[in-house]
Amino acid sequence: MVDRKEKDMSIIEQLRKGNIPDVLKKVAELENVHLDHIVSGILEGTIVVPHNNLKTLDKPCAIGKGLRIKVNANIGTSQDHEDIEEELEKLKIAVKYGADAVMDLSTGDKARDTRLQVVKNSPVPVGTVPVYEAFLKAGKHKGTIMRLTADDIFDAIEQHGKDGVDFITVHCGITMESVERMRKQGRLADVVSRGGSLLIEWMVLNEKENPLYQYFDRLLEICKKYEMTISLGDGMRPGAIEDATDRAQIQELIILGELAQYAVENGVQVMIEGPGHVPLDQVETNMKIQKSLCNNAPFYVLGPIVTDVAPGYDHITAAIGGAVAAMSGADFLCYVTPAEHLRLPTVDDVKVGVIASKIAAHAADIAKGIPGAKEWDYRMSKYRKELNWEGMFKECIDEETARKMRGEIEPQNENVCSMCGEFCALKTLNDVFK
Amino acid sequence: MVDRKEKDMSIIEQLRKGNIPDVLKKVAELENVHLDHIVSGILEGTIVVPHNNLKTLDKPCAIGKGLRIKVNANIGTSQDHEDIEEELEKLKIAVKYGADAVMDLSTGDKARDTRLQVVKNSPVPVGTVPVYEAFLKAGKHKGTIMRLTADDIFDAIEQHGKDGVDFITVHCGITMESVERMRKQGRLADVVSRGGSLLIEWMVLNEKENPLYQYFDRLLEICKKYEMTISLGDGMRPGAIEDATDRAQIQELIILGELAQYAVENGVQVMIEGPGHVPLDQVETNMKIQKSLCNNAPFYVLGPIVTDVAPGYDHITAAIGGAVAAMSGADFLCYVTPAEHLRLPTVDDVKVGVIASKIAAHAADIAKGIPGAKEWDYRMSKYRKELNWEGMFKECIDEETARKMRGEIEPQNENVCSMCGEFCALKTLNDVFK
Repeated sequence: MVDRKEKDMSIIEQLRKGNIPDVLKKVAELENVHLDHIVSGILEGTIVVPHNNLKTLDKPCAIGKGLRIKVNANIGTSQDHEDIEEELEKLKIAVKYGADAVMDLSTGDKARDTRLQVVKNSPVPVGTVPVYEAFLKAGKHKGTIMRLTADDIFDAIEQHGKDGVDFITVHCGITMESVERMRKQGRLADVVSRGGSLLIEWMVLNEKENPLYQYFDRLLEICKKYEMTISLGDGMRPGAIEDATDRAQIQELIILGELAQYAVENGVQVMIEGPGHVPLDQVETNMKIQKSLCNNAPFYVLGPIVTDVAPGYDHITAAIGGAVAAMSGADFLCYVTPAEHLRLPTVDDVKVGVIASKIAAHAADIAKGIPGAKEWDYRMSKYRKELNWEGMFKECIDEETARKMRGEIEPQNENVCSMCGEFCALKTLNDVFK
Repeated sequence: MVDRKEKDMSIIEQLRKGNIPDVLKKVAELENVHLDHIVSGILEGTIVVPHNNLKTLDKPCAIGKGLRIKVNANIGTSQDHEDIEEELEKLKIAVKYGADAVMDLSTGDKARDTRLQVVKNSPVPVGTVPVYEAFLKAGKHKGTIMRLTADDIFDAIEQHGKDGVDFITVHCGITMESVERMRKQGRLADVVSRGGSLLIEWMVLNEKENPLYQYFDRLLEICKKYEMTISLGDGMRPGAIEDATDRAQIQELIILGELAQYAVENGVQVMIEGPGHVPLDQVETNMKIQKSLCNNAPFYVLGPIVTDVAPGYDHITAAIGGAVAAMSGADFLCYVTPAEHLRLPTVDDVKVGVIASKIAAHAADIAKGIPGAKEWDYRMSKYRKELNWEGMFKECIDEETARKMRGEIEPQNENVCSMCGEFCALKTLNDVFK
């Protein structure tokens, strides 16, 4: 361990010394919760505040126990489609419709430029998956991704820290042990995690352990330096309903639980990533087992989507799974857009994806009794009862769309809508009970 | 009771005599369940097969215990927008995307013409709310809906029977008692059921009991004559998250439970309608209490939607609530379109609404272990693993949309999609593990 000046200490280390970093005061205010709640949550590892120490976010947030459910939007290019301006447009619309964080998952040649622009323009925390870039570079400069070294991976992670990234997904639970368990049980869809599959390819062909697991301390040092929150990736997440909650998935989760505890002990904030494709009756179980195995670390889930058969509508399959997950323990929902399983999302897919996830998150906030949640619905329904359309529009999760739709078939009586026309039940009873 | 020839007996009466109507054999085959399951379910009142005896449906279905979750699509005009052709287009698209039943809720001047056309063209059971037409006629011919008589209501119901309607919503649980309980507790949004609000207006201004409750035997006689299944409407369903699961709603449900038992005893098939606006943590409770109070009668829910704040996206709020409801006991999901709370649905809204509800229903079928459900997901994921796009498209809930989306950003390698491009995890592991 290098000696650190106090200002270089991580948030957890500062809190242990009794110092409260300013960012936490700002977050407590934005979250409308008591500062003590945030502080004790970070110290016990049940709350994270992803915030790279090289910059200041306009809209930082806290993720975890007792807090409003947060939503992440994935953006970024692939080799098949690279347009930085479009990604910045996606960032803008994601934030407009309420994304609490974004992940830039770019894998194209302009990956770093995209990342720098996203970090520069994002008011919310930015996450990345540095291993993509490490593999990309190895493939480009060394002829094959197989020649990637542990140094290449950690160099990429350090670069992301320097570039101002707030949280990184690292697939540390892809180990010889979890891969072996997967192969032993067998799976319909093997691995659907990009980072996970590349690491497995590297491990199998080189017959070596995953450097992100083997040199976990090195990872912690870099993350501490830049105050990057670790998001322990679930490379083994099921990619098919058939594979849900199998031994590979839970084996990886056990390993992630161990690593999470070790990370917090060593002063680094950490959250756990979760599935994936999960049948609805297994969603709650998946949330409870994560809390149990990972000391209640914040749980960041992708979806989960509750059926495989709805490409084009996976924002809906994910909203179903996400709402139930968030009600049962998930803290952070990664959106899924209608385009998942088909192509990169467009700007409009990003908008729809964020809104669907926000609906799931808000439904869970109401269910959990998060202060302020059901009050939003109260205001909306009060305006509805009063047939106050301007009031209603302003409370809508997407005001523009609601205004546009109502205008498309105009009612003869401006107080009602064309659904029931004169037979509007609210109007009828307002007259009767007035 | 009039004497009935055997052929005039209701399905329940025939089953009690040991005769099995042909329609049930057809339904058992379509449902892929043993005929005994359907027969015993109908006899004990846990399954209904809505099927007017004046016609033969191409796609009849059974709704209830142990069966695949069914989906209903509401179509129909209002006074503000009347176009029969458009409604028939909605019928067509609803059936194409998997609606198991439709309800024609027309309230315009052409209500009967619309109904006749819908019944004529629908391969699936058609439901209606006859009381709309009764009130509409009273308003038109008697100057005010207040002059409506019990005869007017039962004449309308008889007409719907003659017109070939398979199931009718009747708000029999709107009684002096339940209305009083509602007024005593108070509500944010009072009543949002059109039929319910009109009946309350009539009851309050005339100081009379609801004829649908008072003369329930008369209702049963008509329904038996045409083998119309009764759908006991929930006029007291909450229209705001704030009002969910209150005393008025449960009081009505108690009354509906009594009436349902009496209907089955008297040879008429019956299901119960349910909410509405329900916070996610109360959805399961609502399903369990219905089963308990109503002798496990089939439960037909509208949504439920899990937040009030998302007009324009209520197919999603309803898919969340519907999936959880169906997993917890609901048997029949009434779709909600994006346009709910804003205007009449367009043809495209109907399509999206049906698909969202089918996703919810299918997610519940998987969760409940309904035979054949997860096999669909298995096929999809097997094709996905094989990167067999033609196979995948054919298993998609909406093949056209999936094909269109994938084509919008073409991948360089035709085996993958533009989401991950060359970094496709499935492709990577297919190469490693081949």
